[in-house]
Amino acid sequence: MNFDMGEAAEVLQRTPYSLKALLSGLSESWLHCNEGEGTWTAAEVIDHLIESERTNWIPRLEMILREGEKRPFPIFDRFTHLQHAPDVSMDQKLKDFIRFRTENIAKLKQLIDPALHLELTGVHPAFGVVKLRELLSAWVVHDFTHMAQIVRVMAKRYTEDTGPWIEYLSILKK
Amino acid sequence: MNFDMGEAAEVLQRTPYSLKALLSGLSESWLHCNEGEGTWTAAEVIDHLIESERTNWIPRLEMILREGEKRPFPIFDRFTHLQHAPDVSMDQKLKDFIRFRTENIAKLKQLIDPALHLELTGVHPAFGVVKLRELLSAWVVHDFTHMAQIVRVMAKRYTEDTGPWIEYLSILKK
Repeated sequence: MNFDMGEAAEVLQRTPYSLKALLSGLSESWLHCNEGEGTWTAAEVIDHLIESERTNWIPRLEMILREGEKRPFPIFDRFTHLQHAPDVSMDQKLKDFIRFRTENIAKLKQLIDPALHLELTGVHPAFGVVKLRELLSAWVVHDFTHMAQIVRVMAKRYTEDTGPWIEYLSILKK
Repeated sequence: MNFDMGEAAEVLQRTPYSLKALLSGLSESWLHCNEGEGTWTAAEVIDHLIESERTNWIPRLEMILREGEKRPFPIFDRFTHLQHAPDVSMDQKLKDFIRFRTENIAKLKQLIDPALHLELTGVHPAFGVVKLRELLSAWVVHDFTHMAQIVRVMAKRYTEDTGPWIEYLSILKK
């Protein structure tokens, strides 16, 4: 096991700024391409990250603290942002992500004492009993998953354009 | 085909700043983990990106302009940075990457007129005849490939820690 709350918070703090540095000011052609029918654009991934800040990670953490294993977490709809995302610019989305994330890291640090709380448990609607430290680890890896997705989606726009180099560019084969 | 020189330059400009926002100040445990024997750490990926700026993309572009198909590009050793990378801090590596990249984008804009040069050809040592626009497209996708690699390497540090969430975190299965 490698989880450490300080190190996890380092990543959580940096993700929105790293995505801002990548996506702010980019042409619409990069921000609104996807990998085909039923897949997400970079803009939709940011909407999903914002939705996860609002309704997934911290609400579940608070539920573990408040209710333990009394009842399962509400189901998190991973597609709700596709219906309800506000029609705002990428820069506004990035600002919103930074704001929600900053607030949530402050809550995390205020609510959780790593010496006391990491082994507390709750009930996930699909997985059953989960530990608070597993929830926090998943939050970090969820960031990495979606950063990888965003660069993969944009990379695939140039699949044909790279000609024979596709052979060395493994991201195009995923 | 989607390649556009202005849009490609947008990405090339942003990559080092996005990686700086992600990696600067991170704990050594994140910067020096890898995916197992023979795989790269985030620090080694940055060394490779710097080496590619120094000896791969722009030198090949200049060779296309100067020599066309007269002789193949020198072979780019994708592992040379593992022997020759200077033992400097991540912050210094990021500064170096930003500096080389900034210089190279300036050279790109100075040397290439997209209306004239994109269809020029050179000879790749493995692929044979390649077009300048394929080289530039590969440069962009190479950035995305290594950004995806960095977040995957760091994500895998927490594979065990995520417990049952691994099922939803596809990055851990790559």
